[in-house]
Amino acid sequence: MSSSNPTSLGEEPAFQPLNAEEVRSCLLKAVDFISNYYSSVESMAVLPDVKPGYLRDQLMASPPMLPSPFDDTVNELKNSVVPGITHWASPNFFAFFPSTNSAAAIAGDLIASALNTVGFSWQAAPAATEMEVLALDWLAQLLCFPTSFMSSGSGSGGGVILGTTSEAILVTLVAARDAALCRTGSGGGVTGVPRLAVYASNQTHPTFFKACRIAGFDPGNIRFIPTGPETDYGLDPTKLREVMQADVHAGFVPTYVCATVGSTSSNAVDPVGAIADVAIMFSAWVHVDAAYAGSACICPEFRHHLDGVERVDSISISPHKWLLTCLDCSCLYVRHTHRLRDSLETKPEYLKNEASESGSVTDFKDMQVGIGRRFRGLKLWMVMRTYGTAKLQEHIRRHVAMAKMFEDFVRADDRFELVVPRNFALVCFRMKASGVIKDEHADKTNRLLMENLNKSGRMYLTHTIVGGRFVLRFVVGSSLQEERHVRSAWELIKNITREMLHQQQHNIAIV
Amino acid sequence: MSSSNPTSLGEEPAFQPLNAEEVRSCLLKAVDFISNYYSSVESMAVLPDVKPGYLRDQLMASPPMLPSPFDDTVNELKNSVVPGITHWASPNFFAFFPSTNSAAAIAGDLIASALNTVGFSWQAAPAATEMEVLALDWLAQLLCFPTSFMSSGSGSGGGVILGTTSEAILVTLVAARDAALCRTGSGGGVTGVPRLAVYASNQTHPTFFKACRIAGFDPGNIRFIPTGPETDYGLDPTKLREVMQADVHAGFVPTYVCATVGSTSSNAVDPVGAIADVAIMFSAWVHVDAAYAGSACICPEFRHHLDGVERVDSISISPHKWLLTCLDCSCLYVRHTHRLRDSLETKPEYLKNEASESGSVTDFKDMQVGIGRRFRGLKLWMVMRTYGTAKLQEHIRRHVAMAKMFEDFVRADDRFELVVPRNFALVCFRMKASGVIKDEHADKTNRLLMENLNKSGRMYLTHTIVGGRFVLRFVVGSSLQEERHVRSAWELIKNITREMLHQQQHNIAIV
Repeated sequence: MSSSNPTSLGEEPAFQPLNAEEVRSCLLKAVDFISNYYSSVESMAVLPDVKPGYLRDQLMASPPMLPSPFDDTVNELKNSVVPGITHWASPNFFAFFPSTNSAAAIAGDLIASALNTVGFSWQAAPAATEMEVLALDWLAQLLCFPTSFMSSGSGSGGGVILGTTSEAILVTLVAARDAALCRTGSGGGVTGVPRLAVYASNQTHPTFFKACRIAGFDPGNIRFIPTGPETDYGLDPTKLREVMQADVHAGFVPTYVCATVGSTSSNAVDPVGAIADVAIMFSAWVHVDAAYAGSACICPEFRHHLDGVERVDSISISPHKWLLTCLDCSCLYVRHTHRLRDSLETKPEYLKNEASESGSVTDFKDMQVGIGRRFRGLKLWMVMRTYGTAKLQEHIRRHVAMAKMFEDFVRADDRFELVVPRNFALVCFRMKASGVIKDEHADKTNRLLMENLNKSGRMYLTHTIVGGRFVLRFVVGSSLQEERHVRSAWELIKNITREMLHQQQHNIAIV
Repeated sequence: MSSSNPTSLGEEPAFQPLNAEEVRSCLLKAVDFISNYYSSVESMAVLPDVKPGYLRDQLMASPPMLPSPFDDTVNELKNSVVPGITHWASPNFFAFFPSTNSAAAIAGDLIASALNTVGFSWQAAPAATEMEVLALDWLAQLLCFPTSFMSSGSGSGGGVILGTTSEAILVTLVAARDAALCRTGSGGGVTGVPRLAVYASNQTHPTFFKACRIAGFDPGNIRFIPTGPETDYGLDPTKLREVMQADVHAGFVPTYVCATVGSTSSNAVDPVGAIADVAIMFSAWVHVDAAYAGSACICPEFRHHLDGVERVDSISISPHKWLLTCLDCSCLYVRHTHRLRDSLETKPEYLKNEASESGSVTDFKDMQVGIGRRFRGLKLWMVMRTYGTAKLQEHIRRHVAMAKMFEDFVRADDRFELVVPRNFALVCFRMKASGVIKDEHADKTNRLLMENLNKSGRMYLTHTIVGGRFVLRFVVGSSLQEERHVRSAWELIKNITREMLHQQQHNIAIV
């Protein structure tokens, strides 16, 4: 301590990890890294050739004691991390669903990281709260939602941005569960839970099952309603009604129906309006999971897939899948926000403030699992603000057109078949059983085709099972994807198929 | 369609939102914005002077149809968003808990946004998965955790990075719930849930209550054990044991105990080892919530607060609070990762892959609420890699020293009192009832002091209730904070107090 300043903590130059110049210097290096990555990702093998544990062998086993220049960190990223990445940004990525992205989204996320606000309440982050409300209302307008889902509407509706669809399903399940318990006279207790039943098609993402388990529903009361090719694997409302009616007769309480628009497996679409009509008869909550395909509904030609949405209780859409907004960004809309708050509100003394007490503001902590949260609306707003509706629609249409082109390639080739009609930018196809491929070997042959394609490093696609058959999923959607990449992929598929068929003709045993 | 290329989709220049040059250009503008923000945030009012709805009045009510230059977006950020921010990055921010940050973390988050991998399984993102495993092991080493919590250990332990502590509590509650149901013979059903009981002190963050409700526990079975000044508001293990024993006698099943190291209200510390010893007697799961104070335990002088951690089932720490890593970054460690997987695993066909089937890799989707996830480990690893243990410890010690300095100021001033002993960088203090401040007016006077301080724009602090009394919370921790900011804050507190006391002497009615 210096004698002139008796309580000083010392004059050493302090560690300044957020110094403006230091931040600028590190970020410029990160920008170079990113720019180089996007310029070269096309030439990298989409699936990396690494074995489990590879990274631990290359990096230090323990944190260093002393600081290092930021360049050392970036060099380790280049040398050890990049070679182990599955390149979702590659234009040769056709797997799963895409994680589309854009300059505006990345910049928005960057600014959110830097501002680093914690927006549990309006007062803790007014701009972040209001930006999220506005971004959600904008997206609702793009989707032609009824005003009942908008904060600016006259009702009690609104939205919240969550990390994943799973969380959207979970919080609405909890609200529906508590409402059902209340309706059936269980008071504040949970003794009525074993009687609650929930519904979805057998094509529904398993995160629904997981969310039901987390929320304490009896796994035995989760009804997965069979679907088939007669509805292109969409949920049949008549069957739904029968199952719900049977449950009521057996003493169960129908509580929640999860409809999907664009299932992960094959992009099946459940008829939203008809399902809502059935659910309403039983006072069950209806949620629509439109994680992937919801983004397409900003184009008028796809909007009909959401017809009837004005009668559902909630709907979730993930712009981090197909609306150019990097992870995490999953938008949940509910018709009555107080139904979430009734189940999720907390009011600790240390978060109390005048604005919240006034009831005139949104406190997002009461519409999600956690309390704290990033400035989540910023990147989504920046995407819509920068590109505008026209470019976003163009982006969707471009992907759909490329998928249609691929579908046409498949349809025109005798060796392949389309398994379900294409709704959006996912093409489900497979090599036909015919000639050298016997029916009982077709699944194995298609799996081998997928493995050969993926091992080539020149593309990555994944599979599913539809109607008991092994099917290849070809999803257009990487943000760097152009028509030439889809054409190259198709050439590669044809070439590898040709080789496989040739080998098979000469040595049937390899399959 | 051109005649030379019959299936071409057209020759229009396509919309390229992820073009490398476009990305660079937008990011450089974002970097300028951030650098200017950090340079000027000190001079801005910490709490913004905006009314609910202010942003909607300034920005477009609907998304634009056409694209705009990115500069327009950034200008709206500057003109409309920044004036509505509660500046968590301001060195004059002393509220809640800090959201510390650093250049390395922001750069890491930026790169994660750009790579935009979706790491539900190892195969979907090998580098992201392995980096997260490594970063968690590094942090475990910094915290001197037993190897039973490390992936590199010989046991079945490991960690996962989640968005919030709430999620860490939720997933462990669900695992504990299912294990208790199994242990008590409820099979796969939930009929046993109404008998399950959970425990925490009455100082525990209300997110615990919320997580219990989400997981379907009966709110009536959540035991909040009273605490008082005799333990500095820490949980008394003897009382815990009595309550658990009484529950067993009454037919309840003790299922889960949540201990806190560094409570949000007053930084109370529950004795981890003693609580674990009690819980083990009843086969209850013990979780330690060390969201804030866990970061301090990287310094040997604070590590004793975690003594006994080797006997708990799980512990969560949020580097986004105090370890220079921007949101979201909440680290959960469990002694047996399979206990999470038993409750949270999903195996849809379209996510099946060789690596997962081999059992030799971590698939993080099975240790969290959702399925999808960002490259979460990157920024945390970059913070530790760049700054090293020594600088991270210096950072903690600097904050603690500044808090101690503030504590000394308070102690030396007759008009104030310290309410609980300071453990970390939170000082709980208040104006004393004496002289012109009558005992029955003390709470109101302290609230007025807080309001006057916050209205000044020159600092922001928040309050709590401890032992029934209104208390001011002064938390050192903003990453831009220096000694001079703490000194200025104290000067402001003294000045406003002086004014208030002066006014009161002349007009007692104002309080």
